[in-house]
Amino acid sequence: MEKKKKDKAYIKQMISELSKLDTKNMYLNDFYHTWKESDDEIEAVFHVAEILRGLRENNISTKVFDSGLAISVFRDNSTRTRFSFSSACNLLGLEVQDLDEKKSQIAHGETVRETANMISFMADIIGIRDDMYIGKGHTYQKTVSEAVQEGFRDGVLEQRPTIVNLQCDIDHPTQTMADMLHVINEFGGVENLKGKKVAMTWAYSPSYGKPLSVPQGVIGLFTRFGMDVVLAHPEGYDVMPEVEEVANDNAKKYGGSFKKVNSMDEAFKDADIVYPKSWAPFSIMEERTQLVSDGKLDELDALEQKCLATNAKFKDWTCTEEKMATTNDGKALYLHCLPADITGVSCEEGEVEASVFDRYMVPLYKQASYKPYVIAAMIMLEKFENPSAKLEELLEAATKRIK
Amino acid sequence: MEKKKKDKAYIKQMISELSKLDTKNMYLNDFYHTWKESDDEIEAVFHVAEILRGLRENNISTKVFDSGLAISVFRDNSTRTRFSFSSACNLLGLEVQDLDEKKSQIAHGETVRETANMISFMADIIGIRDDMYIGKGHTYQKTVSEAVQEGFRDGVLEQRPTIVNLQCDIDHPTQTMADMLHVINEFGGVENLKGKKVAMTWAYSPSYGKPLSVPQGVIGLFTRFGMDVVLAHPEGYDVMPEVEEVANDNAKKYGGSFKKVNSMDEAFKDADIVYPKSWAPFSIMEERTQLVSDGKLDELDALEQKCLATNAKFKDWTCTEEKMATTNDGKALYLHCLPADITGVSCEEGEVEASVFDRYMVPLYKQASYKPYVIAAMIMLEKFENPSAKLEELLEAATKRIK
Amino acid sequence: MEKKKKDKAYIKQMISELSKLDTKNMYLNDFYHTWKESDDEIEAVFHVAEILRGLRENNISTKVFDSGLAISVFRDNSTRTRFSFSSACNLLGLEVQDLDEKKSQIAHGETVRETANMISFMADIIGIRDDMYIGKGHTYQKTVSEAVQEGFRDGVLEQRPTIVNLQCDIDHPTQTMADMLHVINEFGGVENLKGKKVAMTWAYSPSYGKPLSVPQGVIGLFTRFGMDVVLAHPEGYDVMPEVEEVANDNAKKYGGSFKKVNSMDEAFKDADIVYPKSWAPFSIMEERTQLVSDGKLDELDALEQKCLATNAKFKDWTCTEEKMATTNDGKALYLHCLPADITGVSCEEGEVEASVFDRYMVPLYKQASYKPYVIAAMIMLEKFENPSAKLEELLEAATKRIK
Repeated sequence: MEKKKKDKAYIKQMISELSKLDTKNMYLNDFYHTWKESDDEIEAVFHVAEILRGLRENNISTKVFDSGLAISVFRDNSTRTRFSFSSACNLLGLEVQDLDEKKSQIAHGETVRETANMISFMADIIGIRDDMYIGKGHTYQKTVSEAVQEGFRDGVLEQRPTIVNLQCDIDHPTQTMADMLHVINEFGGVENLKGKKVAMTWAYSPSYGKPLSVPQGVIGLFTRFGMDVVLAHPEGYDVMPEVEEVANDNAKKYGGSFKKVNSMDEAFKDADIVYPKSWAPFSIMEERTQLVSDGKLDELDALEQKCLATNAKFKDWTCTEEKMATTNDGKALYLHCLPADITGVSCEEGEVEASVFDRYMVPLYKQASYKPYVIAAMIMLEKFENPSAKLEELLEAATKRIK
Repeated sequence: MEKKKKDKAYIKQMISELSKLDTKNMYLNDFYHTWKESDDEIEAVFHVAEILRGLRENNISTKVFDSGLAISVFRDNSTRTRFSFSSACNLLGLEVQDLDEKKSQIAHGETVRETANMISFMADIIGIRDDMYIGKGHTYQKTVSEAVQEGFRDGVLEQRPTIVNLQCDIDHPTQTMADMLHVINEFGGVENLKGKKVAMTWAYSPSYGKPLSVPQGVIGLFTRFGMDVVLAHPEGYDVMPEVEEVANDNAKKYGGSFKKVNSMDEAFKDADIVYPKSWAPFSIMEERTQLVSDGKLDELDALEQKCLATNAKFKDWTCTEEKMATTNDGKALYLHCLPADITGVSCEEGEVEASVFDRYMVPLYKQASYKPYVIAAMIMLEKFENPSAKLEELLEAATKRIK
Repeated sequence: MEKKKKDKAYIKQMISELSKLDTKNMYLNDFYHTWKESDDEIEAVFHVAEILRGLRENNISTKVFDSGLAISVFRDNSTRTRFSFSSACNLLGLEVQDLDEKKSQIAHGETVRETANMISFMADIIGIRDDMYIGKGHTYQKTVSEAVQEGFRDGVLEQRPTIVNLQCDIDHPTQTMADMLHVINEFGGVENLKGKKVAMTWAYSPSYGKPLSVPQGVIGLFTRFGMDVVLAHPEGYDVMPEVEEVANDNAKKYGGSFKKVNSMDEAFKDADIVYPKSWAPFSIMEERTQLVSDGKLDELDALEQKCLATNAKFKDWTCTEEKMATTNDGKALYLHCLPADITGVSCEEGEVEASVFDRYMVPLYKQASYKPYVIAAMIMLEKFENPSAKLEELLEAATKRIK
């Protein structure tokens, strides 16, 4: 496979297209869920991501901050997102400072408000991953945002840091936007996505409690591109109804379709894109949140056992070569947010057969490679009123990154 | 409340005032205790802090290091000080590298000497928080300082990193200087502080072993401004006698007063500023240090229980609305270094009533907001022989921080 | 002792010498073992290290990266190497991002490949320390290297990050190159090393499982300078035979000698340089690796006890004043990679007598001080095709590091 470099003419063209998009509402604002963003805003993220990648490939510095801090708050373990966030911040000239909070802890209003201000005296950006508790993750991010908004209003903070959602209980926009940018590149442009069939499907995993934000994020975003999105899962593994509604509305608005099925086979049939991935049933996640809220931590184990036992009934929900053969031309694009549970490799029985995974390894890594650029794009759009002018400036200056 | 921006004329004026202060002894020196610094030096810290804040508010870069490391050594848990230190360093262009040492460990000479050199090959600054053991924290900081001084003398280090005391057993200068800068701003200038009554008072907390450095630092610093400083605590909760002596000497020299009382009510009566905060009795802290030194770690629990039981006798030492009403005009400025133990919020019974705390939330956050700038000011004064010229240069260059 | 500053004429001279060395094979390549590098390449590392140190001593910025990440992977605890790596990266303008992996874990191919790509989207350099398991450390580093090489080839990564070996099971090049640069400086030049006797000798330590990479690295490197290198250890404490072969070949090629003895006294006799240091027997390390591979973690304790018991038979293998007196003129240069096990200081009985260690403290710290510069030199040589031109540019520009 050949490495395609973006040349300066291409970058110039992208900047020119970006300049026509309306991004003024992103400026000094947070990024939570893709469906709260306009089409121009979504397109702008893709454009800025591609431009930043192009500049870097041409060894042109994209340091738009002379100094400044990006605070990262990971309320769950994370290596990949941590590295993506660090990479994005370094690319723009921000230094990351981690706030380590105890895991498995539901944050309370007052403490959040105080901490949010205490860590923000020099913060430009706050990246938050809080995906563990249904009804809590997004709420936490909003609370932080409101706290720093008030801090700015009251003269505590000399500027308002803005939020990048690095995964919440509802959406995982930096992941799904990277997924989509990968899809766009693989299919040769947004214009080729209309009518393509996407199978966002549950898959068996021996682990428990995987967040719902990826399937939710995918159906909420992919339905904006005129695609036929199928959400498949065993009965009882529903996602949040409000996000299904988003998907339905999108399907109507953008001329695609959204439907739910209880069969992986049905979803895979003639699909152009498949995204088989495990998640925990919404109802279990709600029960879990309630137990933690009530301090009944000793009951969590029993819930986990129950959930694992239920999962085990659906071991045939796995992405095999056989299933892949039923997709369009047998060549659907296989997506995963990684790490995947690979049968016989990382677990006995998992989400995907080893030979399928291996065959798609390079595209999977490429899919992941967009994430730092998507995060950087979100940061730039939040902090620069006129991003195309700034990017034009960078291209013209052409300061070498490696000097 | 309106946010007041510092304009360039104001910054120019501050720089001009700074240029008249004698800071040459700060250059290439450490900052340990406020009372070891001259009046000019204290004033210089406030000026540089305000100038740096002003420059940042005007989006002017204050990066005075092209590269360089600031080492942080936290011998106790810390989120706020860690973020303040990171923020200060980032503001000036230094990168922080943490040295993680085991907690609850008293450092020994030889090891300290070696480690100090090993971490300092490229260090410009070493920030140290070591507040846990009476008679040990400051000693540790001095040992590090002497080690790197020798390392420089012997040609091991190409320069001598200087120390910023981020809290020791004796003083907490970055906190109390931030507190004072807040007071100066709230009262409209140093000239308005003469004759104001300050109540630095012990308050009940269900926790144990809080350091003495804040009350000690406050009586050691606030007595320099011609204020009437009252130190209130239950019998047995004395602070270090040598710091009381500093406070007495200051009172004489600067025309204020310093007195000790055993009544919170008496301290609050007509006070202009109140600082109710828990700390451990000096004698208990000494006993604790001895136990750790002797390796009698199994007796620490019993000591803690004894201390908590004693504390519990003084639950009425709490900052209530009723007590606040007895202050000057009922409107004393309430100070706290945060986090506070708030009755009914973070604990059942604590240092302050929730309604008092809530009413002062914005000023409390502002108080905290000065700390990164105070730390940055100390660093600048330690590393630049002519700080006013350097700051003037930054103002003139007006390099944008967010480009 | 006087601190000798490198002036600009000296730096210019060094750059001119560097320009004559052939370093093109280092460009975009990894640095694993010194014996895989040509004489020009080894000399280039020393030159670049000295030039970088000279520039820094003259307060000249050596920031050759405008932005960029250096990933550090420490598969063993580390403070010194961590700080050296951070210092080197900061010196050049790279930001360090740590990958924390579970300790005592042998990495498997597939996972390594995926992780290597996931952390490398913006990585310029990957520094790896993995010295715990015989036959595993170097293999791990190679696997990472191949993974990112493939990632680059396949268009996943926009550039190939290169590896710096921060210690593996076979060699510890950043340590031994720093050791050698210290030796060169102490003896007044490479030309004075011919015929000097080096005693690389095992010494008793109450700890267990110290890696073999230092003695191996020393015999593999020091034999290149026409020195008479003696490796001394009790029977059964052999190092890897393939590295002994390297030492033998070097001795022949460079006109020195390499011999093995089972007596510390014999090694010390008339030595010009002594390096007494504990390590674990090769066979024990192999047994340990096997136990971990087989998951027999419960047998590790028994192995440790066996090893400690064997060690204890050789408590007289310690560097005493008496032994030092038998060296050349009684004044051999004492080397250690630190921290040393000092009798009566850090342990009851250890590698070296306190009075010997104390007498050599300053030179020992100097020895350590070269490591950050050696690491920085390796990075520069890996990332710049024409390092002398780049360094010339830095010298000419003379951008102040502390502005």
